[in-house]
Amino acid sequence: MRGYPEPVERLLAGLEKLPGIGRRTAARLAFYLLKAEPEETRALAAAIDSVVDTVGCCSVCWNLTDVQPCRICADEQREASCVLVVEEPRDLLGIEGTSLHKGVYHVLTGRIDPLGGVGPSDLTIAALLERIDDACCNAQGVEVSEVILGLSPTLEGDATALHLAEVLRQRSVHVTRLARGLPTGGRLEHASAAVLADALLGRGVVD
Amino acid sequence: MRGYPEPVERLLAGLEKLPGIGRRTAARLAFYLLKAEPEETRALAAAIDSVVDTVGCCSVCWNLTDVQPCRICADEQREASCVLVVEEPRDLLGIEGTSLHKGVYHVLTGRIDPLGGVGPSDLTIAALLERIDDACCNAQGVEVSEVILGLSPTLEGDATALHLAEVLRQRSVHVTRLARGLPTGGRLEHASAAVLADALLGRGVVD
Repeated sequence: MRGYPEPVERLLAGLEKLPGIGRRTAARLAFYLLKAEPEETRALAAAIDSVVDTVGCCSVCWNLTDVQPCRICADEQREASCVLVVEEPRDLLGIEGTSLHKGVYHVLTGRIDPLGGVGPSDLTIAALLERIDDACCNAQGVEVSEVILGLSPTLEGDATALHLAEVLRQRSVHVTRLARGLPTGGRLEHASAAVLADALLGRGVVD
Repeated sequence: MRGYPEPVERLLAGLEKLPGIGRRTAARLAFYLLKAEPEETRALAAAIDSVVDTVGCCSVCWNLTDVQPCRICADEQREASCVLVVEEPRDLLGIEGTSLHKGVYHVLTGRIDPLGGVGPSDLTIAALLERIDDACCNAQGVEVSEVILGLSPTLEGDATALHLAEVLRQRSVHVTRLARGLPTGGRLEHASAAVLADALLGRGVVD
């Protein structure tokens, strides 16, 4: 015997393709699935199958959705004139967690990363410009007046924000970006020079 | 919107049940699956389903198998009189990797762990004794003459080995256990006192 039975090897091969899962972790997961109740294991297989069948990208904002357009774009309570641009659906979920953004979103599905081979054309920037240039392409057919750049404060996020600011400059739309500074809950002594520099440069007047 | 679309949430719930997978890792895996080629995602679902349908425990040695008995038990080239006892199928695979064991195996499917609530009756010890007491229950109907205890040199592994040695003492079977000492490739300075003690007590004569 060279390895596990063929069905187990096939499962290991499938699990090993997942990000951050090596041979050892795949084996641990596979053994868990083999020992678990058959219903639980089948439920996971069904859940995986089901996302392929039912989940796609919103035709307006590129968020994950099982209806078209997504529930946020379809919600008439949201201010469709204000579009917050994020890299990934999980970023969108983080912002939704604050309940502070009353507008809609645009998911770029990534960030500009020349080293990783991701250029502007690999993102949904064209779709964003369409939403701005043609109100019909935006949620509820409303004209876009403000674009909030909600990109991560990383090298790639900044490059993406810079590129977006550039292409949006020619359009009559108000462009803002998320504030940078000390993260609430963190201690000043742990803040890096870059964070402190942001905090100093962006300092506000105390009322 | 509170969270992801329902099919995604269902997938996250399924992934989060896996050992060592929290909400964040589950999300990373789910996004990978959502971005991957549909065929790849479907293949994983099918692989998971398939192990439930096709993989079980060998009726003789409790190893994972998709045929009865497993390929090792059915292999007439193996010395069925020599049974190597391991905790888990992955241990068996490790031993097979050495190509040094010509006999067969017995998988306990765990180890005695009083704190974890695992007692001797939760393991396949009764099946092992049956194989020894009744040749018909062993691979190829051969009588067992040697039992090699291939348990991990941990607290639980040692407790299990002790218990097995105890129940096997009354039987006319030769019981041995894997050698303990310095792990080849490791450096002496990194060895713990327990490892060095094993190495000293088990020292052999240099020819």
